[in-house]
Amino acid sequence: MNENNILLEAYKQTKFKVPGHGPRDIQTLKNALNDIDGQQESDIYGKGKIIEDFQAKMAEYLGKETAVFFPSGTMAQQIALRIWCDQKGIRKVAYHPLSHLEIHEEGGLKELHHIETILLADENSVIQLEDVTGMKEDIACLLLELPQREIGGQLPGYNTLEAISAYCRDRGIKLHLDGARLFEILPYYQKSAAEICDLFDSVYVSFYKGIGGIAGAILAGEQTFTDQSKIWKRRHGGDLISLYPYIFSADYYFDQRIGNMEQYYNEAKELAEYYNQCHAISTVPLEPVSNMFHVHFDAPKEEMESILAELFQATGIGLTSNIREVNPTTSYYELSIGDLYAKIPKEELRGVFKLLDEKMKEYHTRINFTEV
Amino acid sequence: MNENNILLEAYKQTKFKVPGHGPRDIQTLKNALNDIDGQQESDIYGKGKIIEDFQAKMAEYLGKETAVFFPSGTMAQQIALRIWCDQKGIRKVAYHPLSHLEIHEEGGLKELHHIETILLADENSVIQLEDVTGMKEDIACLLLELPQREIGGQLPGYNTLEAISAYCRDRGIKLHLDGARLFEILPYYQKSAAEICDLFDSVYVSFYKGIGGIAGAILAGEQTFTDQSKIWKRRHGGDLISLYPYIFSADYYFDQRIGNMEQYYNEAKELAEYYNQCHAISTVPLEPVSNMFHVHFDAPKEEMESILAELFQATGIGLTSNIREVNPTTSYYELSIGDLYAKIPKEELRGVFKLLDEKMKEYHTRINFTEV
Repeated sequence: MNENNILLEAYKQTKFKVPGHGPRDIQTLKNALNDIDGQQESDIYGKGKIIEDFQAKMAEYLGKETAVFFPSGTMAQQIALRIWCDQKGIRKVAYHPLSHLEIHEEGGLKELHHIETILLADENSVIQLEDVTGMKEDIACLLLELPQREIGGQLPGYNTLEAISAYCRDRGIKLHLDGARLFEILPYYQKSAAEICDLFDSVYVSFYKGIGGIAGAILAGEQTFTDQSKIWKRRHGGDLISLYPYIFSADYYFDQRIGNMEQYYNEAKELAEYYNQCHAISTVPLEPVSNMFHVHFDAPKEEMESILAELFQATGIGLTSNIREVNPTTSYYELSIGDLYAKIPKEELRGVFKLLDEKMKEYHTRINFTEV
Repeated sequence: MNENNILLEAYKQTKFKVPGHGPRDIQTLKNALNDIDGQQESDIYGKGKIIEDFQAKMAEYLGKETAVFFPSGTMAQQIALRIWCDQKGIRKVAYHPLSHLEIHEEGGLKELHHIETILLADENSVIQLEDVTGMKEDIACLLLELPQREIGGQLPGYNTLEAISAYCRDRGIKLHLDGARLFEILPYYQKSAAEICDLFDSVYVSFYKGIGGIAGAILAGEQTFTDQSKIWKRRHGGDLISLYPYIFSADYYFDQRIGNMEQYYNEAKELAEYYNQCHAISTVPLEPVSNMFHVHFDAPKEEMESILAELFQATGIGLTSNIREVNPTTSYYELSIGDLYAKIPKEELRGVFKLLDEKMKEYHTRINFTEV
């Protein structure tokens, strides 16, 4: 359990941190509440000005008729798929093998909703039109995650999205958007959220990734769909008497950061270049299409932990707080650009990568020597 | 939809309000966060000091091995029943016909967990030992709600609880406590929470009833039970990245109000007496056993709305913001005593009931005259 501690401790001590918006601390909520009138009435079980106003704002932004605030995306997305399955009378959906629903939700979709899943595309690729047209079985809904987070945040071409959408409409297959990071891909596609969402029947977005809120999600679609989602929200235990702590923070940080997504995206591309110039390091995707990417090392996890911990101590700049093993000789980590990146002096940042490059070369010289 | 508005508007204008702790406004959260260090790290997916400390505190208070914080009781209780059903291999539980799970959760227990329910006792009575011993069918779990909210907050005798608990243990039936208002009944039973919880295998308590927090619940039991509950919490979409807004407020108001429960209970008894001295009004239970009770009027809902609206305007004291119909000639409302009751000058309060008594007599004189 403590194996990451060298790296985590070194990271914590750094003056500058490369990923994210800053610490996930209580100040995040305090700041969001600062200008809120204490006399304002709480939302009550999904009703009241606070929740209704934010739902209307998001429905408009996403170009959908209505929107419902949920405590989590896990809840919102299971419910979306359940509604589409019930409507079509088929308990079967399709998504990517590394979908959040498949690997991070303890099988909730199967255990609670008894929905069968078809895994489309190879783990390391995004879903293409042929994956969809090649499906033998009849499904109620196809879920697309844009970007595909577990493979570094990759995207299909926009024309592929349009083709998949047209195909699904033709066949009576509902198309659901896992837009946990939808805001973050708008600069790459050069489309509005509403334009992208128009290709989908239902859309989920999150407020604690690029937006940097506390928690919470929006599920949007036509009113007949969102009305049903409210019933399921209650069944799941998500119709809390008050959700305002999450709503205020979602709204506050949405307004603060929605305009920064292009900056984060450009910074991610710049940073990926720095990494790709280093020996035995490459990013996935090679050129990011959002504010996120994965950094792959041709070196084992433990080795990278000590190399990076030393690097952080020497430079005062922290690249990551954790490394994951791919196999005994390679490792990686995921990062997302937020507000912090712009605060790092460029000169110092270049120094970090010069040193990292040297350390990676040193390591490979050392193991090659040992192997001979 | 607007039929309650006369009453609600009159209520809002009053100087003193009889039920509750005060408005459900944003200040409730602001106050709870006031003394919290902004630098403190958020809980992350059920881990971290904030959530672990509070869970440990509640486990100790309830006398259980472990406790898990949930966003809602709806989620916590369905999960508790599911775990007990899975353990026994029987998808069947028993509870009161007016259980929260039966009437307020859109059938989540059935729709998500496919658990069959057996309704014990008459709607207007609490579950007695004979209801339990008389069950023909085998069940995995019996849920007792203490107090039984929908009938005014009634309780069985403590010896009945002990007898039911002993019977269930003998028969291998798990006993679950719906303790949404557990804190509020301790003064009546003159028992500690741990003593009562010791009769049960699993326990749910809420933090936005008598405690007056924002939302959130604790589910407590043995570690094997709570470990499974965390898996189901994730499946339900309740394992939010951060639950701290609810945890801080639960903790803050628990400390502030847990010592007031005897006061609220005594005040509820006093207030019920005032009501019962009025013409054509009676409380259920006649003598409250917690901080809550129901007030029944021998008059229709609309009539009571105008009588009470006039009363509130005349006295500046608000008794309730809503009235529910029982049938075309009778009506009732529910109330819970909190911090506000003690702030009302006793003299003025007695004046309210003197006037209410007169208005009820007037009303009955009027309708008797009309009927003749």
